[in-house]
Amino acid sequence: MSELTELLTIPALDRALQPALQQALDGKAKPPGALGRIEDLAMALGLIQRRARPVVKRPALLVFAGDHGLTRSGVAAFPSGVTVAMVDTLLAGKASANAFAAVVGAEVRVVDAGVAADLSDRTGLAQAKIAWGTADASVEPAMTPAQAGAALLAGARVAEGAIANGVDLIALGEMGIGNSASAALLMHRLAPAPLDDCVGQGAGHSPEGMARKRAVLTRAAARSDATAPFEVLTQFGGYEIAMMAGALLSAAKAGVPVLVDGFIGTAAALLAVRLAPNARDYCLFAHASAEAGHKLMLEALDARPLLQLDMRLGEGTGALLAVPLVKAACALLSEVAELSDVLEAAG
Amino acid sequence: MSELTELLTIPALDRALQPALQQALDGKAKPPGALGRIEDLAMALGLIQRRARPVVKRPALLVFAGDHGLTRSGVAAFPSGVTVAMVDTLLAGKASANAFAAVVGAEVRVVDAGVAADLSDRTGLAQAKIAWGTADASVEPAMTPAQAGAALLAGARVAEGAIANGVDLIALGEMGIGNSASAALLMHRLAPAPLDDCVGQGAGHSPEGMARKRAVLTRAAARSDATAPFEVLTQFGGYEIAMMAGALLSAAKAGVPVLVDGFIGTAAALLAVRLAPNARDYCLFAHASAEAGHKLMLEALDARPLLQLDMRLGEGTGALLAVPLVKAACALLSEVAELSDVLEAAG
Repeated sequence: MSELTELLTIPALDRALQPALQQALDGKAKPPGALGRIEDLAMALGLIQRRARPVVKRPALLVFAGDHGLTRSGVAAFPSGVTVAMVDTLLAGKASANAFAAVVGAEVRVVDAGVAADLSDRTGLAQAKIAWGTADASVEPAMTPAQAGAALLAGARVAEGAIANGVDLIALGEMGIGNSASAALLMHRLAPAPLDDCVGQGAGHSPEGMARKRAVLTRAAARSDATAPFEVLTQFGGYEIAMMAGALLSAAKAGVPVLVDGFIGTAAALLAVRLAPNARDYCLFAHASAEAGHKLMLEALDARPLLQLDMRLGEGTGALLAVPLVKAACALLSEVAELSDVLEAAG
Repeated sequence: MSELTELLTIPALDRALQPALQQALDGKAKPPGALGRIEDLAMALGLIQRRARPVVKRPALLVFAGDHGLTRSGVAAFPSGVTVAMVDTLLAGKASANAFAAVVGAEVRVVDAGVAADLSDRTGLAQAKIAWGTADASVEPAMTPAQAGAALLAGARVAEGAIANGVDLIALGEMGIGNSASAALLMHRLAPAPLDDCVGQGAGHSPEGMARKRAVLTRAAARSDATAPFEVLTQFGGYEIAMMAGALLSAAKAGVPVLVDGFIGTAAALLAVRLAPNARDYCLFAHASAEAGHKLMLEALDARPLLQLDMRLGEGTGALLAVPLVKAACALLSEVAELSDVLEAAG
């Protein structure tokens, strides 16, 4: 696993530029700090890109799709076949993520991480399938260690390819019926937090559905006491979450900022950060999900998302809506006049 | 003042389309409500534009600039000349608002509402100056009733012109040293709220500066007990706030949504809504300012802004950052597949 070991070796964020960036921000034509979180974002981008004037011209959304054996035990409100139908909707450009991506000027790449169907004929789909869905984590480990490692590396390669093509900001999205259940188990072990605090509505549930989801996840959690991040991944899945984590680690290694979406995206970020703590500083948390548990998971990562729009869809929709904020932060450092020039003109 | 009376006659929002819009939103390829506030925004836009598929293709930021006689009593941290210098910065495309406008694809129009300098030679500046700044409201009324009426109508004409040119979303911005003092007085009388709760840092103050600002505003408030909105405007100014209110009323009349910025923009919206309560439903509140008092003023308008980014700059920067959310809401209704089609494909 030397390739994997290398992926997990993320350099600490270089803070050498911090004083220069702070001086540049304070020198812009506005009261110091008056652009609040946009200034924080500009600082983070400058440090991540190691540039006095960070640039984001080509953002891309990577949507990883996968299925979950847990759905066979009834953790999800929608049937597993919806994953395929939504992958096709994404490929047709008709999902919410496509609509938002067009608004913010991001390209969209859809990746088959582990959909439980043959999608080899789909044009425009990146083929990286590890297996036809994970195993049912309430009965057995979701994946083997070899599959977990392969998924992390496959995600890394997708990000690497995008970055090689000129992508300078990666937004992470996912599609996978049942993946809020998998993410809840990851959060439970990696935040860590009591399982009850990690289980939410997902894509929607009746009270009976919620009770069933809780019961199945309690059974899954009882089956393994894993707390080491790689083992937690193998126990509880899923492939799309592993690939998001791999993509995040690869982007961090390359000094490319990553916009982390909602509940499932944050579970992937949590996994990545537990595997390689330095990865934390390359993450930009986009949106506080309406999914119960997200707040606690964000606290575990010391993260305060940019947006709070009561969304709970996934697909990377929350990450996409933060893209203009990232661009605005870059524009502040590149395009705005100096306060000293304005005050001089004012006499 | 019959032209003014007409401006103040805003029709109540027509809610006839509400059930159809709700059905359309619930029918999109996502769990019902999963896009949270973007769905609320889509509903508001559909009702304002009276279209099942609202469209925002040409957003414009209108920046109204004006000076305040109150600055002569020392309410502001910057000298009044900064207003001119920032108008020139805006015209040169080098202010934060220009940078953000470029990111979100909005055009910028700068209007001289009442700058205390001769700007008649400035190319690209809309000339609507009512006077060389307001009078010092701590000593006498900020403007005459004739000036207040003229300012409201001038603002309306600027919005009208933009809308006639095809602008379909108006974002309101302002530039005016001392205008957080004027806005605090308007809020005090129109929210209404205790004066102390209305006074904040503005563009920045030392403790001594804050004490002076409070003392001057207490003197101004003691000078007049006006509570009727038009009289409050004449007493406490300013021209740019009046023009923002006029622009808002004119846009509302035309069924064009208005993005309201932070503390000063919200004071203008409060003025407009107190003058014509139906105008409220045409406002989209963009950003919760870090300026003390904004929260209370938003409560008085029953408004919950889309963004909370700790900004306190003005210029319309907060309004601009909400433009992509508005476009995303439109795209949701126009571009996203139907859930029924996805479920059918899922079998």
